[in-house]
Amino acid sequence: MISVGIVGGTGYTGIELLRLLANHPNAQVKIITSRTESGMQVREVYPSLHGLIDLKFSEPEIDELSECDLIFFATPNGIAMKSVPTLISRGCRVIDLSADFRIKDAHIFEKWYEMEHQCHDFLEQAVYGLPEINRQVISSANLVANPGCYPTATILGFLPLLKNKSIKTNTLIADCKSGVSGAGKNLNSKILMSELSENFRAYNVAGHRHKPEIEQAMEAVSEKNINLTFVPHLVPMIRGIHATLYCDSSLHLSETHALYYEAFKNENFVKLLPLGEHPETASVRGSNICQISLHKQTDTNSLIILSVIDNLVKGASGQAVQNMNIMFGFKETAGLDQFALVP
Amino acid sequence: MISVGIVGGTGYTGIELLRLLANHPNAQVKIITSRTESGMQVREVYPSLHGLIDLKFSEPEIDELSECDLIFFATPNGIAMKSVPTLISRGCRVIDLSADFRIKDAHIFEKWYEMEHQCHDFLEQAVYGLPEINRQVISSANLVANPGCYPTATILGFLPLLKNKSIKTNTLIADCKSGVSGAGKNLNSKILMSELSENFRAYNVAGHRHKPEIEQAMEAVSEKNINLTFVPHLVPMIRGIHATLYCDSSLHLSETHALYYEAFKNENFVKLLPLGEHPETASVRGSNICQISLHKQTDTNSLIILSVIDNLVKGASGQAVQNMNIMFGFKETAGLDQFALVP
Amino acid sequence: MISVGIVGGTGYTGIELLRLLANHPNAQVKIITSRTESGMQVREVYPSLHGLIDLKFSEPEIDELSECDLIFFATPNGIAMKSVPTLISRGCRVIDLSADFRIKDAHIFEKWYEMEHQCHDFLEQAVYGLPEINRQVISSANLVANPGCYPTATILGFLPLLKNKSIKTNTLIADCKSGVSGAGKNLNSKILMSELSENFRAYNVAGHRHKPEIEQAMEAVSEKNINLTFVPHLVPMIRGIHATLYCDSSLHLSETHALYYEAFKNENFVKLLPLGEHPETASVRGSNICQISLHKQTDTNSLIILSVIDNLVKGASGQAVQNMNIMFGFKETAGLDQFALVP
Amino acid sequence: MISVGIVGGTGYTGIELLRLLANHPNAQVKIITSRTESGMQVREVYPSLHGLIDLKFSEPEIDELSECDLIFFATPNGIAMKSVPTLISRGCRVIDLSADFRIKDAHIFEKWYEMEHQCHDFLEQAVYGLPEINRQVISSANLVANPGCYPTATILGFLPLLKNKSIKTNTLIADCKSGVSGAGKNLNSKILMSELSENFRAYNVAGHRHKPEIEQAMEAVSEKNINLTFVPHLVPMIRGIHATLYCDSSLHLSETHALYYEAFKNENFVKLLPLGEHPETASVRGSNICQISLHKQTDTNSLIILSVIDNLVKGASGQAVQNMNIMFGFKETAGLDQFALVP
Repeated sequence: MISVGIVGGTGYTGIELLRLLANHPNAQVKIITSRTESGMQVREVYPSLHGLIDLKFSEPEIDELSECDLIFFATPNGIAMKSVPTLISRGCRVIDLSADFRIKDAHIFEKWYEMEHQCHDFLEQAVYGLPEINRQVISSANLVANPGCYPTATILGFLPLLKNKSIKTNTLIADCKSGVSGAGKNLNSKILMSELSENFRAYNVAGHRHKPEIEQAMEAVSEKNINLTFVPHLVPMIRGIHATLYCDSSLHLSETHALYYEAFKNENFVKLLPLGEHPETASVRGSNICQISLHKQTDTNSLIILSVIDNLVKGASGQAVQNMNIMFGFKETAGLDQFALVP
Repeated sequence: MISVGIVGGTGYTGIELLRLLANHPNAQVKIITSRTESGMQVREVYPSLHGLIDLKFSEPEIDELSECDLIFFATPNGIAMKSVPTLISRGCRVIDLSADFRIKDAHIFEKWYEMEHQCHDFLEQAVYGLPEINRQVISSANLVANPGCYPTATILGFLPLLKNKSIKTNTLIADCKSGVSGAGKNLNSKILMSELSENFRAYNVAGHRHKPEIEQAMEAVSEKNINLTFVPHLVPMIRGIHATLYCDSSLHLSETHALYYEAFKNENFVKLLPLGEHPETASVRGSNICQISLHKQTDTNSLIILSVIDNLVKGASGQAVQNMNIMFGFKETAGLDQFALVP
Repeated sequence: MISVGIVGGTGYTGIELLRLLANHPNAQVKIITSRTESGMQVREVYPSLHGLIDLKFSEPEIDELSECDLIFFATPNGIAMKSVPTLISRGCRVIDLSADFRIKDAHIFEKWYEMEHQCHDFLEQAVYGLPEINRQVISSANLVANPGCYPTATILGFLPLLKNKSIKTNTLIADCKSGVSGAGKNLNSKILMSELSENFRAYNVAGHRHKPEIEQAMEAVSEKNINLTFVPHLVPMIRGIHATLYCDSSLHLSETHALYYEAFKNENFVKLLPLGEHPETASVRGSNICQISLHKQTDTNSLIILSVIDNLVKGASGQAVQNMNIMFGFKETAGLDQFALVP
Repeated sequence: MISVGIVGGTGYTGIELLRLLANHPNAQVKIITSRTESGMQVREVYPSLHGLIDLKFSEPEIDELSECDLIFFATPNGIAMKSVPTLISRGCRVIDLSADFRIKDAHIFEKWYEMEHQCHDFLEQAVYGLPEINRQVISSANLVANPGCYPTATILGFLPLLKNKSIKTNTLIADCKSGVSGAGKNLNSKILMSELSENFRAYNVAGHRHKPEIEQAMEAVSEKNINLTFVPHLVPMIRGIHATLYCDSSLHLSETHALYYEAFKNENFVKLLPLGEHPETASVRGSNICQISLHKQTDTNSLIILSVIDNLVKGASGQAVQNMNIMFGFKETAGLDQFALVP
């Protein structure tokens, strides 16, 4: 049984970590911090936990945190980078759910995130925590950069083509749709229910921060230069990401399906659907699974890949727990074997 | 490890049983039947289970079913009553999620359900499966009538007053609101998304089938004649029941709170909120918990009780698993210790 | 054609006034003010109006406003009371959509609204703008206090009994449910979509500001002392209020229906449904209509009245336009004859 | 004032026609037919119209219908084609909201709609009713094929490039998202609220009927062969279509914007947003407007066009009224000048 700390526990990824770790056979949450809610019972902020959990939010104190075996950062961007060197020097391992260590090139990070990167030294050793690519290096990593939600759905969707080096990079499009929990609990009148319900819209079409993250990971796997057209949209629902991916391909659909089958047949959390089926986000609500399907239309060369995840699970906290399981040699599905909540 | 069968597994309570039993330490689903989907893989009807479960829907065959230790009926009303005598005579125990055995008086059943009751002999021995009232008799029952969703939320809300015999029966009102999954997967143009979303309405205000069920249970506990005004409404959400209960009471709110505290302090699945808080249905989404709060307004004698459950869990399949746990001497929370899905 | 000003036009009642007045045959919006968005085009705040309207938000200047024939205050509470005396002294008429002039007794106002009332002198002459009660006095009023949304649905639901003096005042309950637009566009993490969607809850059960407003109006009509138990709830939808009203009544349902029919038969905006039907909020989405139905259950004396409105139309801006029409002698339905948006 | 008949009035496009024609200055609905609801008051099927409309559904009788100046067919596919010849021979004009006359090539129609086309003779004279392309010929047409919802959003989004003959046809993608009212009121368990709410999915990715319709119209304007990759998705909301369109373009974004501005500056119902803004479906809820915006990402040649409509208005009944206005020489905006319902 390892001891775990959660820094920045009041957001949606924080409470989702609590939910997934509640019955984990090998890990126990010892500390959960929050500057704003420090001193409050967790149940006061999350009344669903009334009578179920006896933890208080505390100030993040480096001495206390460093007594844990593992720290999850569920903080806004720019926080984890300040504490990671000390924690790691004291023997803690870290999984950072923010973007601080996802981008290898500090200049690119600084351009897209509009803040100075204060921890260049750890950018190289940070492992991009997508197990389906990096399982081996994750297992021995001290610092894991947990992927973003759109990148997880998109990279997994393209992955077998990337590994196969057969992807044509000139027409890659990711038309992605996310539930509104991806926007977090921030005070922003644009994410009020009266503004988002019964509404659908794209945002940041000229450029979204997840684009360089996706391109970096796809280039690492494919060993090609990638230019992705990435368009995110907001869906009037709480959870779920649906990536509709387009690329040129002259392969027969059945060949592509066989390629994907081979690539994922041993993966616990990636499920390839039979030809002709379409995944839906509700099928993965609350679960760590990514469902993928493949399609072609008769008179075009476009391969259409559909990939769905729960943005708070495989797109954030579930993947973080999966990474923890790999890092500590636990069963990879530990704490993650709940079925989706349907309907 | 007991072997379990689910009759009528294609509806929402059927798949919810599968979800809750998936990781149950003491029970395993051996058979799941469906006349309409017989021969199909469960995953073909519930694609969320793709790659996770290897079960086929079969025709309900009494010989196969009777080899199970326990049968759940997740069928429409009128089905379970036909098979119960044979199953019990062969040593099976039965939990019926339909209404067939909830009403003790066959005449009342027939009036409200507009069908003949074909199994009068078992009405008396059937135990009303609300553990907070009948835990003792459930433990030795062969036939448990699993309560309706509205009755569960309503009876638990009134329960300490009923047990205390202090309830005033002249002004009891249950203004109840349910998510739309309570209407099941039936083909009815009134429950299409275009009809229900962005809409709120009452239904069956002149009389709803759950009224006699609630009154019967409340009379049994309070030993008084009960006339309840019960009004159900449909909320544009999938899961959740919110009961707003009104009764006259001259007790101080703090005394009432103390009474409720005592009544529920040892219950795993009923959580009394601190004074001043209001429960919300999202706090129990996917969990077997009932949250309750108490309120008074300054210039009236009305005690206002708020009670929330997930209609598919504590209001149906979760309560059925709780009953199974009690019947077979398992830990009462086995398979039911997942936190609510928030947000 | 009268000239109209809207003070505080960036909120939901402000844009709803614009929508309803856009094609009004007798009124034209000349000024729309907003301290926070002053200088911006209306279309920048409400992109639905792109290419349709050529108005800028301006600072509220009393000299400009007083050149209008009528000023609507769509402001937070406490604003209108500061400007009303000057505007009226200069010959403007005023319809205040806030609560400033709804409560006749300044002490009660100050207790519930937790602010000092700065315009006691106009409390008496302010007319409570519910046309179905006060049409006559509205027609000559200079200052109309536009009713709250819950009060409109509740008072109309009880109105024929109040007028008939036959209401029994000992057991009056209003269990009310509102769409989330009633909470406005305020920055409050409790009204984010991730918090409200797929969720239902009560709020302010110990006491809500609309309770004294409802009681005052019901007392004025019935000439009895009224103690109402009023419980508001939040429904996961944008628009709509559903009031479920309970009162003791020994009248036959058909007699009550006849009483209601007589009371409303000449009203343009109150529609009594046939016995056996239930109104739904979607039926009045975007329209100024209130639909009402009556019900009894066999073994109780409770009369159950269901009353639905669109909180932004009959519950706010539509009723304000109706009041304007009455004040200026226009056809009462002018600008208000659009059908509901269904589905 | 012309007299109008609606055939097949019980569906969503039928009631939407009633709503839009209710206050039309030049047209009056005389007949509304329905085989299934014949004899019922319209208000019995659409309770929102209680007390507002005094029409009964009747059997569709060709003699009665042919006394109208104009017949709208709001029927399933395959119905209008049976009556059109007689109606037109008797001097009626027809606007068909179904697909019967949209596809010029009967073979293509029969392949995609899986039914025999029974009215080949009128395929040529039928005018495709997209006013922004065919205003002139619509004005004198006797038979207008009202476009589908996806085609309207998609074609308008590409239109200036098509007219300019500058479109590159090799990489055209339309990733389209629709509210669920597009699926109509059909009894299908896949469109129940419990199945669609909190869910997002693609459907018919291998091929959707609107693809040949879009390609035909785009080929007619561009005089090029068009191969479009078209992927439809279902959004958990009632109304709205959002088309995200991709095409290769070496033009500067500002040049493209100027081209679009010129193309639409005189259109009443197409609004081009300023650069940097994104349209949202809620901005056109209940209105006949199409809002369009243009975007590029720094390192790709993809032009991204966003186009939103209300599927029941500009995507169906509103466009039908617009066509009627053009056919009969009314003001093109008559009956269509209501603002969107926001929020």
